[in-house]
Amino acid sequence: MTDTVISSKSKEVVIGFERPFAVIGERINPTGRKLLAEEMKNGDYSRVEADALAQVAAGAHILDVNAGIPLADEPAILAECIRLVQSVTDVPLCIDSSIVAALESGLEAYQGKALLNSVTGEEERLEAVLPLVKKYGCAVIAISNDDDGISEDINVRFNVAKKIVERAQDHGIPASDVVVDPLVMPIGAINTAGVQVMELVQRLRTELKVNTTCGASNLSFGLPNRNGLNTAFISMAIANGMTSAITNPLHAEIMQSIRGANVVMGNDPECADWIGNYREPSADGAQRRGRRGGRRRRRG
Amino acid sequence: MTDTVISSKSKEVVIGFERPFAVIGERINPTGRKLLAEEMKNGDYSRVEADALAQVAAGAHILDVNAGIPLADEPAILAECIRLVQSVTDVPLCIDSSIVAALESGLEAYQGKALLNSVTGEEERLEAVLPLVKKYGCAVIAISNDDDGISEDINVRFNVAKKIVERAQDHGIPASDVVVDPLVMPIGAINTAGVQVMELVQRLRTELKVNTTCGASNLSFGLPNRNGLNTAFISMAIANGMTSAITNPLHAEIMQSIRGANVVMGNDPECADWIGNYREPSADGAQRRGRRGGRRRRRG
Repeated sequence: MTDTVISSKSKEVVIGFERPFAVIGERINPTGRKLLAEEMKNGDYSRVEADALAQVAAGAHILDVNAGIPLADEPAILAECIRLVQSVTDVPLCIDSSIVAALESGLEAYQGKALLNSVTGEEERLEAVLPLVKKYGCAVIAISNDDDGISEDINVRFNVAKKIVERAQDHGIPASDVVVDPLVMPIGAINTAGVQVMELVQRLRTELKVNTTCGASNLSFGLPNRNGLNTAFISMAIANGMTSAITNPLHAEIMQSIRGANVVMGNDPECADWIGNYREPSADGAQRRGRRGGRRRRRG
Repeated sequence: MTDTVISSKSKEVVIGFERPFAVIGERINPTGRKLLAEEMKNGDYSRVEADALAQVAAGAHILDVNAGIPLADEPAILAECIRLVQSVTDVPLCIDSSIVAALESGLEAYQGKALLNSVTGEEERLEAVLPLVKKYGCAVIAISNDDDGISEDINVRFNVAKKIVERAQDHGIPASDVVVDPLVMPIGAINTAGVQVMELVQRLRTELKVNTTCGASNLSFGLPNRNGLNTAFISMAIANGMTSAITNPLHAEIMQSIRGANVVMGNDPECADWIGNYREPSADGAQRRGRRGGRRRRRG
């Protein structure tokens, strides 16, 4: 059993083998969102705030914050976003950048124990990011690629993850603070991509004893009805031991699949979360059911 | 690798470890369907025919046919239904009755190699049903309960399954013709019901090397949004090796989850089935996309 504890100033979230699956909201990210990128660059964070609130309302446990805008002052914008999001929500954050200076700026601004996104097995990245993880006492997402790129061989990906976990330990970071992303490949191109992830997640859990995460939507790249496929995949990954994912909590189907998987895994005691979210009367059925209930009471 | 081959006069369906998941349509069953029961009793099989066609159109690979109507001539009605369904569809059938005489009457009427539903670990049932399986050369669903009822202990349920498989072998029936139903308990009452099924399915597959099936909807008994929970469960059961289920193919969410699970398991080569079912333009988007396409063509 491995628990990765992440926190804000006032709230703790635990990613763990016997915990409800942790949903890391992916929306605060200007990549591919032109309008958001433009607004953030101009110091308008109203959409960042709205995205934060909407994702928490939809059930996100952690919010990823990324400020990767070309030709902008990413370290400053990322720090600004983190301060803002922490002022309007109490969920812990995942500080996301490809630029090490931005990661550090984000960590400085952050209150609590963050999840840092990410370190890879690339030598330069390892030696730049792990000291930050140690210095700020945060947890980190470890992505299973290295200086040779992303391997299609799951043994290679497993060994990259192992190397990162061991290197983290050399830096005084416990394995429980490393959350491994085994990398999800597009199944339209690689037919075994799903089976690969499920095998890797099992091995990472039993052999390295680490928590896992992924960008679940990579699997469906290039295929129709991506949400439908992502929905099936995420519950299957959970069945194999995946403990978190960076995903869009505003997709009701995905959240239903995750909540359902928590029930099936026995990680929703008394099905309380499920019942709380899907209890009848629903918006539509409320009236009819209400009326029937009334008649029954009068007869009784 | 275990293949269970079922057939009609003209079509073969294989339930197997490396096959797309087999969907056994559950709709032709008067239990809890008062109108259908009444019609069937009066020799009106129009709804049986419509249910057969609709389920096949929705993607069912096998159709369960049950004629369990109190105070009716079940053997005669079941045979009649089987003849009718075989005259309008070419999918293989699952002959379903709690009455042994009805099973035999169904087998006599059936053309091909049927799936018989079911034998249990109860002594009387074993010795009544297995000779029929042998005589007609069909396959059989084995339900993991015995004279002591249904155990909550999965070791007991596993051992009941093992006993049935061994007894079948004594009767000259190969293990590949026994499809085990490990029994799905309501998770609202038994929090470990999901984990139980997943463990049992794995053991049945690796130790007994048999195919598996279940009534997936039992899991959600008593809970709200049953379809949502069944949808998550079925893909998770597939991730653990379940190879078929008796379910309602008219529920689009369930079928999407099963098709998605086939993709993830690598059992939908080139994602051809997924793309065929969910290709855009969809019914709704067809017009808009068609028009946009048209404009593009005019510009080009």
